[in-house]
Amino acid sequence: MRKIVTVAVTLTAMATQPVIADERAVILIIGDGFDDTHVTMGRNYLKGHAGQLLLDQMPFRGAVQVETVDSEGTPIYVADSANTATTLSTGAITQIARIGKNAADEPVKTVLESAAANGYKTGIVSTASVTDASPAAFAAHVTIRACENPVTIRGGEKYGVMFDGCPEDLRENGGMGSISEQLALADVDVILGGGMEHFVAQYESYPTALALAKEQGVTILTERDALKQQHSGRVIGLFSEDTMPVAWRGTDGRIAESIERSWLNYIHQMIGSITQPEVIECEANPTFTEMPTMETMTRYALDHLSRDNDKGFFLTIESASIDKKAHERDACGSIGEIKQLEEALAVVMDYATENPNTLILVTADHSQAAQIVPDPTLYTSLPIPVFSPGKVSRVVTPEGSVMRINYATNNIRSEEHTGANVPLFANIEGKSVLSPFMRQRDIYDAMMRYLEL
Amino acid sequence: MRKIVTVAVTLTAMATQPVIADERAVILIIGDGFDDTHVTMGRNYLKGHAGQLLLDQMPFRGAVQVETVDSEGTPIYVADSANTATTLSTGAITQIARIGKNAADEPVKTVLESAAANGYKTGIVSTASVTDASPAAFAAHVTIRACENPVTIRGGEKYGVMFDGCPEDLRENGGMGSISEQLALADVDVILGGGMEHFVAQYESYPTALALAKEQGVTILTERDALKQQHSGRVIGLFSEDTMPVAWRGTDGRIAESIERSWLNYIHQMIGSITQPEVIECEANPTFTEMPTMETMTRYALDHLSRDNDKGFFLTIESASIDKKAHERDACGSIGEIKQLEEALAVVMDYATENPNTLILVTADHSQAAQIVPDPTLYTSLPIPVFSPGKVSRVVTPEGSVMRINYATNNIRSEEHTGANVPLFANIEGKSVLSPFMRQRDIYDAMMRYLEL
Repeated sequence: MRKIVTVAVTLTAMATQPVIADERAVILIIGDGFDDTHVTMGRNYLKGHAGQLLLDQMPFRGAVQVETVDSEGTPIYVADSANTATTLSTGAITQIARIGKNAADEPVKTVLESAAANGYKTGIVSTASVTDASPAAFAAHVTIRACENPVTIRGGEKYGVMFDGCPEDLRENGGMGSISEQLALADVDVILGGGMEHFVAQYESYPTALALAKEQGVTILTERDALKQQHSGRVIGLFSEDTMPVAWRGTDGRIAESIERSWLNYIHQMIGSITQPEVIECEANPTFTEMPTMETMTRYALDHLSRDNDKGFFLTIESASIDKKAHERDACGSIGEIKQLEEALAVVMDYATENPNTLILVTADHSQAAQIVPDPTLYTSLPIPVFSPGKVSRVVTPEGSVMRINYATNNIRSEEHTGANVPLFANIEGKSVLSPFMRQRDIYDAMMRYLEL
Repeated sequence: MRKIVTVAVTLTAMATQPVIADERAVILIIGDGFDDTHVTMGRNYLKGHAGQLLLDQMPFRGAVQVETVDSEGTPIYVADSANTATTLSTGAITQIARIGKNAADEPVKTVLESAAANGYKTGIVSTASVTDASPAAFAAHVTIRACENPVTIRGGEKYGVMFDGCPEDLRENGGMGSISEQLALADVDVILGGGMEHFVAQYESYPTALALAKEQGVTILTERDALKQQHSGRVIGLFSEDTMPVAWRGTDGRIAESIERSWLNYIHQMIGSITQPEVIECEANPTFTEMPTMETMTRYALDHLSRDNDKGFFLTIESASIDKKAHERDACGSIGEIKQLEEALAVVMDYATENPNTLILVTADHSQAAQIVPDPTLYTSLPIPVFSPGKVSRVVTPEGSVMRINYATNNIRSEEHTGANVPLFANIEGKSVLSPFMRQRDIYDAMMRYLEL
């Protein structure tokens, strides 16, 4: 008996060990700001409160701690997309605004770069500008995220704030150049998203990033229909000037609003009356119509990376505007972007069915400001007006209820990020390299391990 | 070769199947309001941002969708503790405020009652009054959660709001009585927590719940030291009048505060200056000193339930004040309660090491208002004051950073609940009955299945 048991144990161990294959792929989907609140917003709206997203049906689910430090290495409890994408791409814990550089401001090799160096094909898809933090951190290295092009790298204004630029990253100073210049030259087989303005931005007589890319023989795509056919060699697709327009918006473009207060309520908030914002519905965003969907870009990238490839690939896909629309207090904008993420996920899950040695990961870079709050308040019995000090959207869902989203982290036009741990979803391959609780740097390790790098 | 493989598979299957044993236990820990934000607050404060809670080391982690309906059965996206504890305890999706009753207001048998009816011992531990929603929903059935005792069941005031009481639940109307009366008579072996005021509340000449319990021969404990020895038969321990004081508070009892605004900033919020609240530290709460810890109550309950017991038990433990202190905007209060939850979890994990057929679940009933926000704002470069429209606590953590907690869901003294899906943690036994994504009713099903009910 003992002998058979020994054999059994050996065979069992063999069975659970990943099979060594010629082809192997990692697809990392980053939902920017896609925390558990946004996952639930998406579920409630798209599938109903008793329904399941495709994400909910994935066999692995865990939580991920986000780590950020300041220049002294002291912990900071809320991150930005630059430092977290850098941790996911390199394993380094770093400062806010860093792209592909560690806390000491040194460039760190990314999983994409390691994969490319080892013969894997590589790709980047985003609904933001491809020079934005999350896509950039996989193939570029600059000190400040706003150094997106040859003009901004010399300093200027981003989000209304002046900054110094990244002098040490200037090519003439021996640096690697701005993000768009680095992407133009990077060993990445396919890059799709927005951001044309960063590729045509020109400083004095220096070549634009677009010119650099063309010099390298890169095929440049600018129209959605170009994705209907394949192209050989390196491809960069830039379908909008900066961030791509999102698929959905609220009724007539309305975002979250303050309550209206009666004259008496201004005298004291415990008296008088208030009027809640009218409900909204999510509707198609007219400016989205010319855009390729995230699904279309994903399908093109998968085709491009898997054709004539017996080694495998690394592909990162960012659903950028969950976060961007949360900053703007546009709940329907975020939900439409979650719908896009789900559709892209369906495509990669189908791919993994045909190609079992494919690790699919979905996670977020940081959590965001939106909260689902009661509609009406839990305190309806109180004989006083009860209202959010921030701004709210009251979204009518297809199942006929009102989902109220509260945005109340600050007083300016753009909400703050928040600091909760974020979800992690994976297909069955994830079980061999993931744990129920990880830090973002552990995800980098897991991807490297899976690709045997 | 094929034959050996067959043997191997059989042995593997046997090894992963739960062993049918005489004894079997379920321990359900409910962190009230213990969403991913509070889990992260606890981790950052208690273990550091790169550390791990005991919870983080559990082998199973998933997410749970919270379901609530109104009287028409229409979905509501934010729950209260009564309806969610009822879903966990009975599998029924119900209305806000219901205790052990479904949406049609009919009593539903709970997992605790089914376990007791099948020879399992049963127990309830809470840091709230044992008549509060989460503990009550496992062994009582009333229409409105405030019907906690023979006085309030006849209507009155709770949280400053008048309500009608629960006339159909009155014993003289053929009902089962108030929550404290039901707990006095219920077939529960051990009940420990706060709530003495609900057991001594007397309406006219009707007997108090305490009198009913004594008639049944129940041992009543009121002092912490009584938990140093065991008692035979049914035990009810009531260590405070209502909710038990919490272990921690902020410096000098300070809770979240508004910013101070300069005169100019009152003229327009884009000018002038603001002063952020001073930082606080978490300190021992002086009113906690006479209380038994959650760990002590848990240890007593485990001893009580496992002695002379060859069948097993069902035990639910509530860490109530994560939620209650979030309502009050008291971040240190919530964190101290999370510390208590962790200490109680360590005790039950030790028990499960000795008694492998023990399913340990930790989950939350609903999410809560607290958010971890940047300190300082992400928009430090802006030349205008940036501040939360709500109230903030700036908590200095033991690793020397400031964790800023924002409470901004409404304008009154008590925050709203929120609607994100909540975490679920389990020990290794969980893998046989749980999935990565569940609805709260599925947790009821899983516990029933594990206990073979």
